[in-house]
Amino acid sequence: MKQIVLASYAKGNPRPSDFRVEEVPIPTAGEREILLRTLWLAVDPLFRFAIDEVRLSGALHLQLGDVMVGATVSEVIASNHPDYKPGDVVEGRTGWREYAVVAPDQADYRGPPRKLDPSLAPVSTALGVLGMPGQTAHGGIETLRIKPGETVAISAAAGAVGSIAGQIAKIHGARAVGIAGGAGKVQALLDLGFDGAADYKAPDFAAQLKAAAPNGIDCYFDNTGGDVTLEVFKQLNRGSRMAMCGYIAYYGMGYEGPGPDHMPALYRTIMGTGLEIRGFAGFMAGQKALDDIAGWISDGKLTYPEAVVEGIEAAPQAFASVFSGHDFVGKLLVKVAEPA
Amino acid sequence: MKQIVLASYAKGNPRPSDFRVEEVPIPTAGEREILLRTLWLAVDPLFRFAIDEVRLSGALHLQLGDVMVGATVSEVIASNHPDYKPGDVVEGRTGWREYAVVAPDQADYRGPPRKLDPSLAPVSTALGVLGMPGQTAHGGIETLRIKPGETVAISAAAGAVGSIAGQIAKIHGARAVGIAGGAGKVQALLDLGFDGAADYKAPDFAAQLKAAAPNGIDCYFDNTGGDVTLEVFKQLNRGSRMAMCGYIAYYGMGYEGPGPDHMPALYRTIMGTGLEIRGFAGFMAGQKALDDIAGWISDGKLTYPEAVVEGIEAAPQAFASVFSGHDFVGKLLVKVAEPA
Repeated sequence: MKQIVLASYAKGNPRPSDFRVEEVPIPTAGEREILLRTLWLAVDPLFRFAIDEVRLSGALHLQLGDVMVGATVSEVIASNHPDYKPGDVVEGRTGWREYAVVAPDQADYRGPPRKLDPSLAPVSTALGVLGMPGQTAHGGIETLRIKPGETVAISAAAGAVGSIAGQIAKIHGARAVGIAGGAGKVQALLDLGFDGAADYKAPDFAAQLKAAAPNGIDCYFDNTGGDVTLEVFKQLNRGSRMAMCGYIAYYGMGYEGPGPDHMPALYRTIMGTGLEIRGFAGFMAGQKALDDIAGWISDGKLTYPEAVVEGIEAAPQAFASVFSGHDFVGKLLVKVAEPA
Repeated sequence: MKQIVLASYAKGNPRPSDFRVEEVPIPTAGEREILLRTLWLAVDPLFRFAIDEVRLSGALHLQLGDVMVGATVSEVIASNHPDYKPGDVVEGRTGWREYAVVAPDQADYRGPPRKLDPSLAPVSTALGVLGMPGQTAHGGIETLRIKPGETVAISAAAGAVGSIAGQIAKIHGARAVGIAGGAGKVQALLDLGFDGAADYKAPDFAAQLKAAAPNGIDCYFDNTGGDVTLEVFKQLNRGSRMAMCGYIAYYGMGYEGPGPDHMPALYRTIMGTGLEIRGFAGFMAGQKALDDIAGWISDGKLTYPEAVVEGIEAAPQAFASVFSGHDFVGKLLVKVAEPA
């Protein structure tokens, strides 16, 4: 079987050459273990954290030669555990490999592999709208405590989290304004039902954002940081709230980035507007978020764009494109195999 | 009479030479106006905002030659307004001058001059513990929603706001840890009842802070930003809260400071701890805060150090010392005149 390992620690944006494909034997399930065959791999910017040379935060940190960490949907091929049987489809974090052995009794804080019901929704959604990205979108919007009629700006709005967050903001009665890179993504956001959108790569980004949010911005769902956020700061209303759900602009950095220092802009904005900022991560949202989202999907209130690349060898290039720019909208997935 | 005007816009930290003393005639009160004689001037770092060449925020911005803005306690000398009579003592924002004429009907959002009751407390407290700094301390602590037993760190803890905030944190059942510059100020904080203190000018500041907050920091009352805050970020617990009440480290800057950029540290901290940040300004706290504080003073739970310099000519030097360093603890006041 094929697996993809870390060949060199990333400097700045990850490159495909930071990874290497290896051919290894299919592993065997031991006592109370299960053998999984990967069907889908998620390309999550979150896992950028794992491939810095210096451990910067959290439990994720790879050694050179380790299999790249990643969320997966897999089929149970063989089971020595009473809770799983062959043919079950599960979501877990088994990494970039075609097969994996898991010991459900030794799961981390995320719990044992989550069994999916393929009759409810395509199983790939467990990596997107009905998984961590959907939970992040739901929980971040809850954090903002939106009042109907308010304007909510969303950075990285064409991404897996942002594309869902904007639609949930509208369900809460807000005007949803998406920020994304390129005219194609801006149009895709409007097609998804966003009330306005702005292209951060355009020279008139500030003016586009003002036009899309003519009454100013009350809530900001931030996935990026960086220059996008610095412009949003200038257009925030008094009493605004910000949910910080990611910071892709800084993932390649440690605690410092290239100058100048923008902390003064942050302080001026917070004191000038009374801005409230809270961090939110998907794992905090729980099952309630997934239940709400499933209901909105079945009511036709929420659509979930997915972009798919084929074959496990495509994962490094797809992962790198999340940081260097691509034209996909919604959740970016690698299709590794068909179910048996 | 003497008044102090802005001679040159400040670059970085204000210098005494940014101001000039002028001799002008005592003004005369017109219809529905009152003539005030200044007794006390407050030295508030807040008013640094007014003396940037470019207007950066808010309504405060001086032209060269304007009288420096500042909070005062004054005695009514002559009154053509029915609500005020000679001998009344009032708090207002009449600036760095020995006499001022005010039209109470044309007051700004802060309302007309606030009449003080000299029998309740020394009138100088209207510029400190029973004025804007006390309100900032009270409101910032409310913002933190302290649970008994939590550790609250306070930057600029020897200042007018911080010295009160730490005591209020203790009233809420917290362990109060002050951060200040110099061993003398650290000792003064312990004398005020702080449970621990750390000297940010010491080479072992990080270790001092760890020793003072052995269980980590749950709440952070920030008056400074800058390097102090970056160290606090590293010692915050999960679920921590931060009240941003000032940012003296950045007052001489625009939206940018010298690099590197520390926004990545902010994002990593917020996402890593779930930190919540809110801005709080004294004017938001209202009369309730002053009533609480007056009660705590009369119950002996709150003391309010004051440092006094004499004569209006001392104001520029005192103001500059707030930014360049001094050894005063508590509210820094300029005594301009004795009441009649």
